[in-house]
Amino acid sequence: MPTPIDPARSLLLTDLYELTMLDAYRREGMEAVASFEFFVRKLPPCRNFFVAAGLEQLVDFLENARFTDEELAWLAGTGRLAPETIERLRAFRFTGDVDAMPEGTVFFADEPVVRVTAPLPEAQLVESRLINLLHFQILIASKAARMVLAAPGKILLDFGLRRAHGAEAGLLAARAAWLAGFTGTATVPAEPFFGIPIYGTMAHSFVQAFGSEREAFEAFARSRPRALILLIDTYEVEAAARLVVAMAPELEAQGTPVQGVRIDSGDLAAHARAVRAILDEGGLSQVKIFASGGLDEQTLARHRAEAVPIDGYGIGTSLTTSTDWPALDCAYKLVAYAGEPRRKRSEGKATWPGAKQVWRRYENGVMAGDRLGLAEETLEGEPLLVPVMRGGRRVGPLPTLAEARACCARQLAALPEPLRGLEPAAPPYPVEPTTALLALAERCDRLQRARAR
Amino acid sequence: MPTPIDPARSLLLTDLYELTMLDAYRREGMEAVASFEFFVRKLPPCRNFFVAAGLEQLVDFLENARFTDEELAWLAGTGRLAPETIERLRAFRFTGDVDAMPEGTVFFADEPVVRVTAPLPEAQLVESRLINLLHFQILIASKAARMVLAAPGKILLDFGLRRAHGAEAGLLAARAAWLAGFTGTATVPAEPFFGIPIYGTMAHSFVQAFGSEREAFEAFARSRPRALILLIDTYEVEAAARLVVAMAPELEAQGTPVQGVRIDSGDLAAHARAVRAILDEGGLSQVKIFASGGLDEQTLARHRAEAVPIDGYGIGTSLTTSTDWPALDCAYKLVAYAGEPRRKRSEGKATWPGAKQVWRRYENGVMAGDRLGLAEETLEGEPLLVPVMRGGRRVGPLPTLAEARACCARQLAALPEPLRGLEPAAPPYPVEPTTALLALAERCDRLQRARAR
Repeated sequence: MPTPIDPARSLLLTDLYELTMLDAYRREGMEAVASFEFFVRKLPPCRNFFVAAGLEQLVDFLENARFTDEELAWLAGTGRLAPETIERLRAFRFTGDVDAMPEGTVFFADEPVVRVTAPLPEAQLVESRLINLLHFQILIASKAARMVLAAPGKILLDFGLRRAHGAEAGLLAARAAWLAGFTGTATVPAEPFFGIPIYGTMAHSFVQAFGSEREAFEAFARSRPRALILLIDTYEVEAAARLVVAMAPELEAQGTPVQGVRIDSGDLAAHARAVRAILDEGGLSQVKIFASGGLDEQTLARHRAEAVPIDGYGIGTSLTTSTDWPALDCAYKLVAYAGEPRRKRSEGKATWPGAKQVWRRYENGVMAGDRLGLAEETLEGEPLLVPVMRGGRRVGPLPTLAEARACCARQLAALPEPLRGLEPAAPPYPVEPTTALLALAERCDRLQRARAR
Repeated sequence: MPTPIDPARSLLLTDLYELTMLDAYRREGMEAVASFEFFVRKLPPCRNFFVAAGLEQLVDFLENARFTDEELAWLAGTGRLAPETIERLRAFRFTGDVDAMPEGTVFFADEPVVRVTAPLPEAQLVESRLINLLHFQILIASKAARMVLAAPGKILLDFGLRRAHGAEAGLLAARAAWLAGFTGTATVPAEPFFGIPIYGTMAHSFVQAFGSEREAFEAFARSRPRALILLIDTYEVEAAARLVVAMAPELEAQGTPVQGVRIDSGDLAAHARAVRAILDEGGLSQVKIFASGGLDEQTLARHRAEAVPIDGYGIGTSLTTSTDWPALDCAYKLVAYAGEPRRKRSEGKATWPGAKQVWRRYENGVMAGDRLGLAEETLEGEPLLVPVMRGGRRVGPLPTLAEARACCARQLAALPEPLRGLEPAAPPYPVEPTTALLALAERCDRLQRARAR
């Protein structure tokens, strides 16, 4: 069934309860200003930090958030909402404020990454898609940053489209990975959409379709690709490497010198060493070795420790699905309504009340600790949340993706040494609530208990 | 940056090498008919079977696959492809055949799920998106089926949109879960797109926005939701359950009887027992208990073994990201070109050559073993791949999603007992290659070795 509604842009792409709650808010006149904050509850054991990402897609979503007539006609037909609520939805525009950490900022558990301040129904309705957009790019950028730190000086390419969870995931994973420092991606639309460099070689099916590897390599060279990278593991890796050496003079003579080989199976380190020796002996020491197939940051770190002669990596599944930790425990929680701070106290899921800010101190260019306080406080250090939208419009152009990438590189360079490794840093990075925040949390609890009586 | 190209439908949503290879295929006149097969290489240790899903989206993609003028203008501008190749892309239509297992069919490692037979460039170009579409829904349907088997008789709802990897993942996860036997989803567009029942209650922010739980519950009842399900864990679960008992008579008198409560945090089993006792004592034994928050099939099975009084589950992250195994080792491989079988021999990734079929035998209604053979063979049992497209058009209407769901239910009912559990079945389900297939694989290897000399 073709989908008449574009799920990526439709405001209908939400959880049903968001609409049901709007119905009740309207009846009850609950339309005062609310503040919601998006944050991640916990650092997984296999992450030492997170990287903020996805803000550009969020702002784009908020600026364009509206229902189409078809959507409202369908919704009205279900009889689930009062006709007055349908009319409110027809007029729906996001008119609120957004404060957020710029993309590329390193952050930690419990720190607000995005704060939305808007009439309660607006701030509520955008919840599901807001989390959906922020969570995924943060997940991938945080994973990609580990790979970038594990393989300094290496070419890192995103090969993950096919195993990504759908079209949007494939495309946005390419964006998040580049933001975090990847060299590029194989996913074509990443170039026209985001200006990300794209790369590609050949598939096994290409080699197989020809009668032999030699014929396939010759044909590929005749098509004059931007870079002649030959896939050498369709049959036997070392035999194919010797074939590359044998073919190199004629390919060079035709003006298409071999620039690299790619190995996609077997023991990549052992193959790379053998292939490097064959290429070097054959006078092809300038030919680069690329590896792909089941790679993650642990393999990259091991290869680095063992000085495996691989120049570049194509990384797919482990990057675009964040295989070791495919979802973060994130939330978008009400922290104030109608000028009053609010706090959820559910077991293991208690939240900090009030609109908050994060201040970061640096010592000699290295992150030295964050304070989590109330937005109205003034503390030492760099405030991480900055104004992004006011009255439903962006306050100015967002940083470009290239700027966000540069921001992320600076942040990664400022990480304390223990956080740069793949193992859990001990002690973890210090994030301290301020006295004012602690006092407010206590006051909220007392107030709520009094009301419950 | 708004995206002028719809990534979910664009043929540009592919890996760069697919386009580069097309350039070479055109130059070389490599346009004979090829067969590619999609399969999963291995069962993960935490899966005993897979469920076929995603075929409808694939067929829709193949029938509509074409480049827009904007896409081609951009591609031409990159200078990566010869002008003749761009013209070929302009005329691109998928004209091939597809044979596939119907959605809902249970399958195993190495069994072809979808076979594409088309001129080589067509079959090649659709590779990346084909894998992207099939992999994700198979992943989620296979995960959801475990939950369905672990919790017979329970209401199972998909709550996973917010943590799903993007918009398409959220929507297609709802589809795959329902196909596998879930009761419904919270994701709104799943109803208009796919006819899936949608459900929803209220969020913590709703409760928090009001001064007290009592006010929030009263307001929610006034909005006359289809089912009055009250969220009782914003502050203290048992206190809120007693509040529900106290409020029940007035809610009943207003014509909005309480139908259920939802618990979303803490020790769900312990809370459910305490809440059940409070409700029963208060005369509310008909009120259902729903649980959500960090659930997976292991918890469902434990709850079942311990007879925890929970009637329905909202399952999010573990379902829509398949947290324990977020990607399958699947592939789409060339198995024949121009009438000749092809085989990849890469270490650990060798593939079976030739167009294949799977025959399944049943004994007393239980799956008794599969044979993997050549499509031209005739074997005992039910052939699982059936014609789906011929000459680029579907041969007839595909089964509806409801029919696919019924097919999946029948298949799950026919699973051998050891495969129904959550632990790895030993021995695994038998899938035997035929003598003809083994002989062909050997012949391919001999041929390729001879050519390499």
